[in-house]
Amino acid sequence: MAFRDITTVLQDRTAFRKLVDAFVHRYHDQKIDAVAAIDARGFIIGSPLAYELNAGLVLVRKKGKLPFDTLVEDYELEYGTASVELHKDAFKPGDKVVLVDDLIATGGTMLAASRLIRQIGAEIVEVSAMIDLPDLGGSRKLRDEGLNVYTVCQFEGD
Amino acid sequence: MAFRDITTVLQDRTAFRKLVDAFVHRYHDQKIDAVAAIDARGFIIGSPLAYELNAGLVLVRKKGKLPFDTLVEDYELEYGTASVELHKDAFKPGDKVVLVDDLIATGGTMLAASRLIRQIGAEIVEVSAMIDLPDLGGSRKLRDEGLNVYTVCQFEGD
Repeated sequence: MAFRDITTVLQDRTAFRKLVDAFVHRYHDQKIDAVAAIDARGFIIGSPLAYELNAGLVLVRKKGKLPFDTLVEDYELEYGTASVELHKDAFKPGDKVVLVDDLIATGGTMLAASRLIRQIGAEIVEVSAMIDLPDLGGSRKLRDEGLNVYTVCQFEGD
Repeated sequence: MAFRDITTVLQDRTAFRKLVDAFVHRYHDQKIDAVAAIDARGFIIGSPLAYELNAGLVLVRKKGKLPFDTLVEDYELEYGTASVELHKDAFKPGDKVVLVDDLIATGGTMLAASRLIRQIGAEIVEVSAMIDLPDLGGSRKLRDEGLNVYTVCQFEGD
């Protein structure tokens, strides 16, 4: 898999603003209650998106980084497993949520995070990311779980 | 040191907006070129701040997470050392930069990041964070380096 660098886009004020606005424009008329952002690069889009939508920002973190009562979901990596963690009171049942990360590769983190959010009873309007690597099958797997998927750009042939 | 949890503030849409706006209002008339945000929770304020100021977003990351040519600065922890890393082309000389993290404790990360930014020749307008723990001496140490320091709230007696 080639390394997809987003830092040059972020450093360019115009490119960065256009990138964030792609997400803002997509959701601004949908009464989103919360943006769930995956640690750490999901915060880069998730935080300004929550701010612009006047929504709450919920952090989905790697295991052990959140205080208080949490829910944990494991997922498989190429070698071994990892876990994501979410506060039990992060959402109210029925809350409309957009789940954001930087990139969809195998989709494992997104899928685990989606399950946690649904477990609390919130509604996932869409899962979205800057980049999709469709050859790795993550976005297809997410759609198979009944999730809407949005990405700003796709790179084939990785 | 007590655990200072920010997640309940972030999840509350009004509190989150007011928190980000404290930073936006402070810098919006100062022609900031770039916001440098420290991995990972510095992204939470840094990214919407960059968006609102129409500035670039530069990531200051833990060692080994950035591609291409980088500069590295070590700093001391209670036990051992850690490093922060920055792209060599992250700023142009003379760029006006705000450096953002979530919390100032001993100030080691902020100080190391500040040195990297100055090494490139950019001007640090201010280093800022949501929370200062002044008893740990970090904000004093940063001021001793000639840096302006801004924090939204301070907790004494940690």
